[in-house]
Amino acid sequence: MVKQERAVRTRKALIAAAADHFSHDGYGPASLVAISRQAGVTTGALHFHFPTKEALASAVVTAAAQRLRELLAGCEARTPSGEALRLLVDAGHELTRRLREDAVLRAGFELDGDLGCPEGIGGVRGLWCLWIQATLEQAEKTGELREGVVPAQLAAVVYACTVGLQTLGRRDPGWCSQRMLTRFWSLALPRITADRRGPDPAGS
Amino acid sequence: MVKQERAVRTRKALIAAAADHFSHDGYGPASLVAISRQAGVTTGALHFHFPTKEALASAVVTAAAQRLRELLAGCEARTPSGEALRLLVDAGHELTRRLREDAVLRAGFELDGDLGCPEGIGGVRGLWCLWIQATLEQAEKTGELREGVVPAQLAAVVYACTVGLQTLGRRDPGWCSQRMLTRFWSLALPRITADRRGPDPAGS
Repeated sequence: MVKQERAVRTRKALIAAAADHFSHDGYGPASLVAISRQAGVTTGALHFHFPTKEALASAVVTAAAQRLRELLAGCEARTPSGEALRLLVDAGHELTRRLREDAVLRAGFELDGDLGCPEGIGGVRGLWCLWIQATLEQAEKTGELREGVVPAQLAAVVYACTVGLQTLGRRDPGWCSQRMLTRFWSLALPRITADRRGPDPAGS
Repeated sequence: MVKQERAVRTRKALIAAAADHFSHDGYGPASLVAISRQAGVTTGALHFHFPTKEALASAVVTAAAQRLRELLAGCEARTPSGEALRLLVDAGHELTRRLREDAVLRAGFELDGDLGCPEGIGGVRGLWCLWIQATLEQAEKTGELREGVVPAQLAAVVYACTVGLQTLGRRDPGWCSQRMLTRFWSLALPRITADRRGPDPAGS
């Protein structure tokens, strides 16, 4: 039992250390020796838990996807029903905040765009894209969208803009910020809301 | 003279091959052996022209910056003065087209976001960012912007969105497309133009 708990702790420490290194150095250059050292284990222990670098990246992505799902579920629980646009704006701000603080979530998003990383590993960005689209379809159903706004088309713009801010934020953290996201929503919201009183671009 | 011409041709072939490989594989994984092979020269000849991988990447970026400047100058020459917003929309579409076809231009943009690439190499994206901002300041001067629109704030949104489309386009070319850029401008233009008859979101 104690042994099993220790194994779970080691696995978590390795995932956290790998996320740090993948996010800071990129998948290719990230060193397994440095990752095991940061996690406080031998490289033998790393290979016991994750036989390959791919397996380690895959575990980071799985953990990141889980955190994204929890983040979105939390936002859904806090938002009154029938306010899908507010949910979308708030979730974007929450994600921006968390991407700065949470290396696992950040690495999950970044591995999706990392050419050095095998293409089969990833999907956190895709999850975010699908959720944006589903939420805008919900907004259409509840009459929150102005006539003529097509959820799938708008979803692509929202998604591209958030990916752009996150990409630029890798070199300059000021880009992946609530200030920048607020600028986007200030531009977009008045064009897409049916009601004059749409959600606050800065989030609620 | 003939020898000098051959040197210029070799240099160009190496830059083109390097751009292909940097863009396809990323800076870190790109192989100098494969680059010299594609350029039809020995690795010795590659090292004669470019002593390091960094020097080669730097040459790709310099060539890409030159192409971007020419592209923007061409758009400026074709656009009637006093139509800065139309210039911005058209240049974005022209850039999107060229990014798909021109590996040197594409690699120049991508090396900016490539964590494996030394940070001092780059600046093509920054050039694009500065040009967007200068063009929007011009639009403000000629009264094309709606009251309350702040050029620097709008420039950040336009820049982030184009970087997002280009980043997503690395894995799925459908993203870096005029269709996607048109969606963005369809959303943004009615919010920012002083006049009801702004430029065509699909470009002119």
